[in-house]
Amino acid sequence: MYTLKDVAVHENPGDCWILIKGRVYDVTEFLPQHPGGAEIILSYAGADATGAYESVHTSSLLETPPPGFRLLGPLSPSELPPVSRNPGLDVELHAKPPLDTIINTFDFEAVAERTVTPKTWAFYSSAATDLLSMKLNRRAFDRVLFRPRLMRNVKSVDTRTKILGFSTGVPFFIAPTAMQGMINPDGEKAVAMGAGEEKVIHIISTNSSHPISDIVSSGKGPEQQTHFLQLYVNTDRQKTAQLLANAKSCGLKAVFVTVDAHISGKREADERLKVDVPVRSAVSGAISHNDKKGGGMGRLMGLYIDRTLNWEDIPWIKSVAGGLPIVLKGIQTAADARLAAEYGVQGIVLSNHGGRNLDTSPPALYTLLEIHKVCPEIFNSLEVYIDGGIRRGTDIFKALCLGATAVGVGRPYLYALNYGAEGVAHLTQILKDELETTMRMCGVTDLSGVHPGLVNTREIDALVEDGIEHSYVKWRPKSKI
Amino acid sequence: MYTLKDVAVHENPGDCWILIKGRVYDVTEFLPQHPGGAEIILSYAGADATGAYESVHTSSLLETPPPGFRLLGPLSPSELPPVSRNPGLDVELHAKPPLDTIINTFDFEAVAERTVTPKTWAFYSSAATDLLSMKLNRRAFDRVLFRPRLMRNVKSVDTRTKILGFSTGVPFFIAPTAMQGMINPDGEKAVAMGAGEEKVIHIISTNSSHPISDIVSSGKGPEQQTHFLQLYVNTDRQKTAQLLANAKSCGLKAVFVTVDAHISGKREADERLKVDVPVRSAVSGAISHNDKKGGGMGRLMGLYIDRTLNWEDIPWIKSVAGGLPIVLKGIQTAADARLAAEYGVQGIVLSNHGGRNLDTSPPALYTLLEIHKVCPEIFNSLEVYIDGGIRRGTDIFKALCLGATAVGVGRPYLYALNYGAEGVAHLTQILKDELETTMRMCGVTDLSGVHPGLVNTREIDALVEDGIEHSYVKWRPKSKI
Amino acid sequence: MYTLKDVAVHENPGDCWILIKGRVYDVTEFLPQHPGGAEIILSYAGADATGAYESVHTSSLLETPPPGFRLLGPLSPSELPPVSRNPGLDVELHAKPPLDTIINTFDFEAVAERTVTPKTWAFYSSAATDLLSMKLNRRAFDRVLFRPRLMRNVKSVDTRTKILGFSTGVPFFIAPTAMQGMINPDGEKAVAMGAGEEKVIHIISTNSSHPISDIVSSGKGPEQQTHFLQLYVNTDRQKTAQLLANAKSCGLKAVFVTVDAHISGKREADERLKVDVPVRSAVSGAISHNDKKGGGMGRLMGLYIDRTLNWEDIPWIKSVAGGLPIVLKGIQTAADARLAAEYGVQGIVLSNHGGRNLDTSPPALYTLLEIHKVCPEIFNSLEVYIDGGIRRGTDIFKALCLGATAVGVGRPYLYALNYGAEGVAHLTQILKDELETTMRMCGVTDLSGVHPGLVNTREIDALVEDGIEHSYVKWRPKSKI
Amino acid sequence: MYTLKDVAVHENPGDCWILIKGRVYDVTEFLPQHPGGAEIILSYAGADATGAYESVHTSSLLETPPPGFRLLGPLSPSELPPVSRNPGLDVELHAKPPLDTIINTFDFEAVAERTVTPKTWAFYSSAATDLLSMKLNRRAFDRVLFRPRLMRNVKSVDTRTKILGFSTGVPFFIAPTAMQGMINPDGEKAVAMGAGEEKVIHIISTNSSHPISDIVSSGKGPEQQTHFLQLYVNTDRQKTAQLLANAKSCGLKAVFVTVDAHISGKREADERLKVDVPVRSAVSGAISHNDKKGGGMGRLMGLYIDRTLNWEDIPWIKSVAGGLPIVLKGIQTAADARLAAEYGVQGIVLSNHGGRNLDTSPPALYTLLEIHKVCPEIFNSLEVYIDGGIRRGTDIFKALCLGATAVGVGRPYLYALNYGAEGVAHLTQILKDELETTMRMCGVTDLSGVHPGLVNTREIDALVEDGIEHSYVKWRPKSKI
Repeated sequence: MYTLKDVAVHENPGDCWILIKGRVYDVTEFLPQHPGGAEIILSYAGADATGAYESVHTSSLLETPPPGFRLLGPLSPSELPPVSRNPGLDVELHAKPPLDTIINTFDFEAVAERTVTPKTWAFYSSAATDLLSMKLNRRAFDRVLFRPRLMRNVKSVDTRTKILGFSTGVPFFIAPTAMQGMINPDGEKAVAMGAGEEKVIHIISTNSSHPISDIVSSGKGPEQQTHFLQLYVNTDRQKTAQLLANAKSCGLKAVFVTVDAHISGKREADERLKVDVPVRSAVSGAISHNDKKGGGMGRLMGLYIDRTLNWEDIPWIKSVAGGLPIVLKGIQTAADARLAAEYGVQGIVLSNHGGRNLDTSPPALYTLLEIHKVCPEIFNSLEVYIDGGIRRGTDIFKALCLGATAVGVGRPYLYALNYGAEGVAHLTQILKDELETTMRMCGVTDLSGVHPGLVNTREIDALVEDGIEHSYVKWRPKSKI
Repeated sequence: MYTLKDVAVHENPGDCWILIKGRVYDVTEFLPQHPGGAEIILSYAGADATGAYESVHTSSLLETPPPGFRLLGPLSPSELPPVSRNPGLDVELHAKPPLDTIINTFDFEAVAERTVTPKTWAFYSSAATDLLSMKLNRRAFDRVLFRPRLMRNVKSVDTRTKILGFSTGVPFFIAPTAMQGMINPDGEKAVAMGAGEEKVIHIISTNSSHPISDIVSSGKGPEQQTHFLQLYVNTDRQKTAQLLANAKSCGLKAVFVTVDAHISGKREADERLKVDVPVRSAVSGAISHNDKKGGGMGRLMGLYIDRTLNWEDIPWIKSVAGGLPIVLKGIQTAADARLAAEYGVQGIVLSNHGGRNLDTSPPALYTLLEIHKVCPEIFNSLEVYIDGGIRRGTDIFKALCLGATAVGVGRPYLYALNYGAEGVAHLTQILKDELETTMRMCGVTDLSGVHPGLVNTREIDALVEDGIEHSYVKWRPKSKI
Repeated sequence: MYTLKDVAVHENPGDCWILIKGRVYDVTEFLPQHPGGAEIILSYAGADATGAYESVHTSSLLETPPPGFRLLGPLSPSELPPVSRNPGLDVELHAKPPLDTIINTFDFEAVAERTVTPKTWAFYSSAATDLLSMKLNRRAFDRVLFRPRLMRNVKSVDTRTKILGFSTGVPFFIAPTAMQGMINPDGEKAVAMGAGEEKVIHIISTNSSHPISDIVSSGKGPEQQTHFLQLYVNTDRQKTAQLLANAKSCGLKAVFVTVDAHISGKREADERLKVDVPVRSAVSGAISHNDKKGGGMGRLMGLYIDRTLNWEDIPWIKSVAGGLPIVLKGIQTAADARLAAEYGVQGIVLSNHGGRNLDTSPPALYTLLEIHKVCPEIFNSLEVYIDGGIRRGTDIFKALCLGATAVGVGRPYLYALNYGAEGVAHLTQILKDELETTMRMCGVTDLSGVHPGLVNTREIDALVEDGIEHSYVKWRPKSKI
Repeated sequence: MYTLKDVAVHENPGDCWILIKGRVYDVTEFLPQHPGGAEIILSYAGADATGAYESVHTSSLLETPPPGFRLLGPLSPSELPPVSRNPGLDVELHAKPPLDTIINTFDFEAVAERTVTPKTWAFYSSAATDLLSMKLNRRAFDRVLFRPRLMRNVKSVDTRTKILGFSTGVPFFIAPTAMQGMINPDGEKAVAMGAGEEKVIHIISTNSSHPISDIVSSGKGPEQQTHFLQLYVNTDRQKTAQLLANAKSCGLKAVFVTVDAHISGKREADERLKVDVPVRSAVSGAISHNDKKGGGMGRLMGLYIDRTLNWEDIPWIKSVAGGLPIVLKGIQTAADARLAAEYGVQGIVLSNHGGRNLDTSPPALYTLLEIHKVCPEIFNSLEVYIDGGIRRGTDIFKALCLGATAVGVGRPYLYALNYGAEGVAHLTQILKDELETTMRMCGVTDLSGVHPGLVNTREIDALVEDGIEHSYVKWRPKSKI
């Protein structure tokens, strides 16, 4: 029997082992024969390829492995997760209630908490240190009240809008999240499939479980369905150029550059749990190997991200993006929002990364209000999106009233993916239905009708700065070193 | 044995089944012979008529059913509610404590929670999505402090006042609530009976369990006791015209048009529980049949409500109301309050529907303060009422100090109805007694003495907008579609 | 065996029964022979005289009752409190920890909660309806921060001050509380004894368990120890005049007229518990007989209080007070504080009666701040005290910094009385010690050094009104009746 | 068998008993022979010397005690702590998890809570009365949000800075805490050892378990590692002069004079637990003997502190400090901060003593903001440090942005010392790592880049005074005595 460490050292073209469904294979000789190319197998060299394997092959195929696909033996049982609750691991999920009993995002979350593996739950649900920003994200929405206008004809309502000029059935998109294959072997492909009907735009992560081309082709195809790319810039800039070229050729329509995660946050729940089975992103190639600090997935898979990235790199990003619109994701101050406008990007996502990076960083809703106070003119030069804590149709409507073009929904779609493409589609219907109800109750029939007068933001207004500078202008730091 | 579905399909004059106390009857041939007319039976066609039946017949009557009243057999036991705790279902209520041990509204609520059927509890107690507005309603009152004036002769106090010119013993009325027969088979009739002594005005819901005429006649009669009508406008406007004509002929004195419920809120606790036995309103004719979304009673019984209703319909409403005063119920902004005044209605109820419709909609108390800031002059052109969260005599007095003519009490009267007409009268005495104590302790002897100087609203004042527009005037939405 | 009802009807000079230690006596014939006079026995006619009896007689005296003191038989056991935990009932108090382990007011409270009778606990600890004011009282102090001034010589500190010109060792007094005999048969007499050493001034309640003369003589006597009288004005004004004359002759030095309790608050915990054994005040003569509303002690014993009392009665009060200083207890607004100054009284107690009367009435600390904002000049014309929620030496110091001459401590002394006179003295030492520590830590060595600059009241300042009128001046109530 | 009281009375050179590992020795005759001098033994006369003994001798040494070191017999078992969980008492610590699983300060605290003796836990974790200031200290940091600036090259970050001109690897120091030998027999010596690598400056308490020279020599020596002295001024001023001379000769570089603890706070959890075994400070000589008030360690060991200390003593402190920089620790108002600048000290520590002295004293962060509002110019004349509630790298960064030169970390280092020098070093790495992450996420690469514009203090700003005087200037206290 083998251990994960045994497998991990065989990770190059001349000595390549992989793990599929708890069995270890030496596939070195098979590599040149693989119909799909050696590259895709090598992206799992030394790691677990179960999810990727199952997503494109029938499960009987390995009963008689092809020549050069040599079974070495089973993985040691002690290396398997103690209670395997992940559908990707062939386990009966008797605990999952029928999809039609799920009536809100919190239901999806509650089911995920008790049916996915502890490590998947830790990775998805965790946030930075004391979870204050994560909680503030929700609380910020709860503290905004409506000012509903009544006695208007609301027989028909229309939730359609455009994001960067691309049509969508709803004013929310699927925020990029890494390694969706951890909750469902079909991962991003199932998301693409489930998002198609309502034309929900999906932003594909640089750390996706599946290759971009597979994701796009699982949906309605690049002509019928819009996908964007989320980009982590690689310290090897050449790889980023290649990724962007590939994304464009696959039909992706815009690039969301993450600017707040050049270093990963300290997500303690995730760090405390070791990685059960190393996983590898089919797009970035990053693998999750535990290190002495712990098992923090985001940290382990983000080591390639370029920490030198700065405003002066914007022209280079534009040059390698091949004309695709550029959006900066992770803006947290009006000052940076204004800089983004000056640097000529097409949009910004106000975000604190779901509270996952820097604890007590501001909820996106605060930053949105700060822009109103400091530089409202930028609403005319770029599109503004927000994410973090969106769980209700009321949240979406509030963001739109306050100037957001659309909002990103992250974790809820991960939890919905626990039910596959159907779960994704069901979540979209839930949010759309809640949004329509909210629109009707506020007297708005289409999204051109939103405006700040429909919300009361008094409770949080006083908590938002109204200038670039802090009011403590009298004191200036002396150099200390 | 029969199922509810079996019964439900026989719902027309040519094929009419009804359910009484767990037995299914084919009453098609009996219809023309019914002394009370076919219409009343038909209002329960395909549904459970137990409550209505018991309220007018002795229970022995069906031991030998009349000709044409054909017993088909029992309802399948699996279709009955698992634990039948409703007095309407002939169950011993050993858990209900003596009425004289009930000393406040919360006692009534606690008893109801453990003695009524789960579905009745879910329907009455539930509110929209995350229950934030429901909780805010209570919290808003708790955050207003008194400024009691002492050393005044308060030997005698008088709680009498007038609402729309009609005398009442107390400055609160029984807010309209649907299907009161669910908690007590006598439903609205028992309410009418219990409300008479103190001349508490009862607003009869369009979705009442009992016919208006029965309700009115159960009390002291239209000359001695004032009732108003709550109106949901029907998509079939002709039906609304008929309803108003009927209401007027029954002696109802005013029309409260609900303007915030053209679509029902998402009350999740109610939605999750299927309807045990379909019920039907004797006034609107709406029946509660579960659908694929769930069992939300308010939603299922509100499908007939006209979503096109708007300000331009006010003249039509006036025309069919036959001169009765018109009050708009559900106003949530100063802007709409001002419009109501401009459209010439006689009153408005500031309300967020008990937090049941749109979560994070404003507590009525906030809207009341908003009117003080924005358009206090309307207090001179119409009467202003508020409802939502009123549980104490102190709450009533605070609302009056802030300009309300009277307040509506909803759920507490439902829970009191659990004890029948006596419970209704007892609740009235509790609230009146608490109000008198409050008046004495604030140095006020009759209701002409109330004024804002008797309350300190500082804690919530800062949370209320002071203009029609939001302060973020710089940004204007661009059309997005 | 007899019931309490049996006893209660024999309550006049011609037919007088009393209850002593669970036995019923007919004392009609004994009345004229009583060495202490008939009056004192009659004050317990039809009620339980155990506490009063034990406080002046040896326990063996009744083994052979005097002539005319006829034993009728025992009280029915079912009428005795189920678990008799009151020291007045001769029960071992094994649960009470040694006094020297009690180190703060909360310890005294916790011991009382588990060692006194349920009814005594309900009467002392309860407050009006939802307990919001009671909790606010505490919270108001907790939200005021210190601004401690350091680097000052604080070797010696002095807590002495004067109240109405009378010397006291500490700037707090024992607030008047009714029926102190319920927790300890010696009641007010033990308080007088325990208060002497530090010259803590005790305000004797009109509803005291013991006669004023007995109380005063239990301490160091009227020359050495200062007592004041708390006054409830009787509807029979002649009785009030007599009471004041008696108080003056007993050496009491000032009159605190309660102005906020012409009607008792709705203290639900107290109301729900029936009175075990009726008790009678030796001063006012009020007896606690349950009625149909319940067993609320404050309500039952306050029925004689004159509800017509008003500002125009001040001259009369002065006339019957025989020149004693007059203080109004229960002032809750700056407006009434100013009136008190205009009517020429010597002091006011800002108080919401421990949160016991009107829920959401303002904490005294708020009213104190309101005076600073509205009419600070009154600090120069009368003395201002506050009570309610004082539990720490820090609370006392904060009140003094904000202009109070002294503070009243109520419930804590009741709970300390559970340990008799020693408990009273111990509590005084605890509070004095905490106060001295606070003074040292704030850089203050005697009480002339306090001032508002030593506290930060920002967190509650915004919650306090700054004018007599509410800011909603635009709207004026129309007469409604 | 002996009791602690038996031992305690033999506490002078002519009659000296000590306790080592549960055995009582008479060492009177041994005193002149001790190679380390009589003085060090005498510092434990009548008390427990186990910790000090073990830190310099092998454990086998006492198997055959030297002449004049006379074993009297064992301490009575009933005098030993009931459950001995302290490593200093030779107990297996099976409950302590491996150090590498400790990933934040709260982990260290949780381990300490369940593995140290109850008395040690009570002494370290307790705070004044109701713990409000202790909780506010944490909450103040949590309520400050970041305003992170993104898109900056943050590949390298540098946490080095200078404190009073002395280099340190991190902008935090180890705040002085008393009797570190209670949690680990090596106490301050282990701290010195663990602090060396990152050049963390350790402030040695006047109430240290070990002599200053031992502490300094346990680290890298006075040339390589900076130590400061925390000073409690003794009522016997000569002793203070001697202590300062000794400190300087040992190589200590600055004096932090504690100005807020001339009297100890009322730490009730500590007071309620008796001292198990008296301990004695090797520096101040203070011994912890229970008294009738209780067992409060801070109180018992602070009886020698001079309560007359005041501003006019500053010149004398300077004169005996031999030119070392003077810092005042415990400043809580802008007014005193300004005085400190006027009196020419080199620095101030804004501190409420970890909430241990005066409850509801202000969090240091509030005082820091008060200085910004009232006298920001003092940042140019002295260094400002803060302590209290620092538990995260984010807290440190916030303090620096708001003008602090460095912050003090107290209790967390005590809890880390539970793991010895390694624990101390591990905690330093945790805080440094969190700080580096925070710097990167805010776009700051070295500590000269911090400024108030990186934080949003709106939520607490409104709670901070903006003048020396309180706004209630109208009222001035009259003398009351």
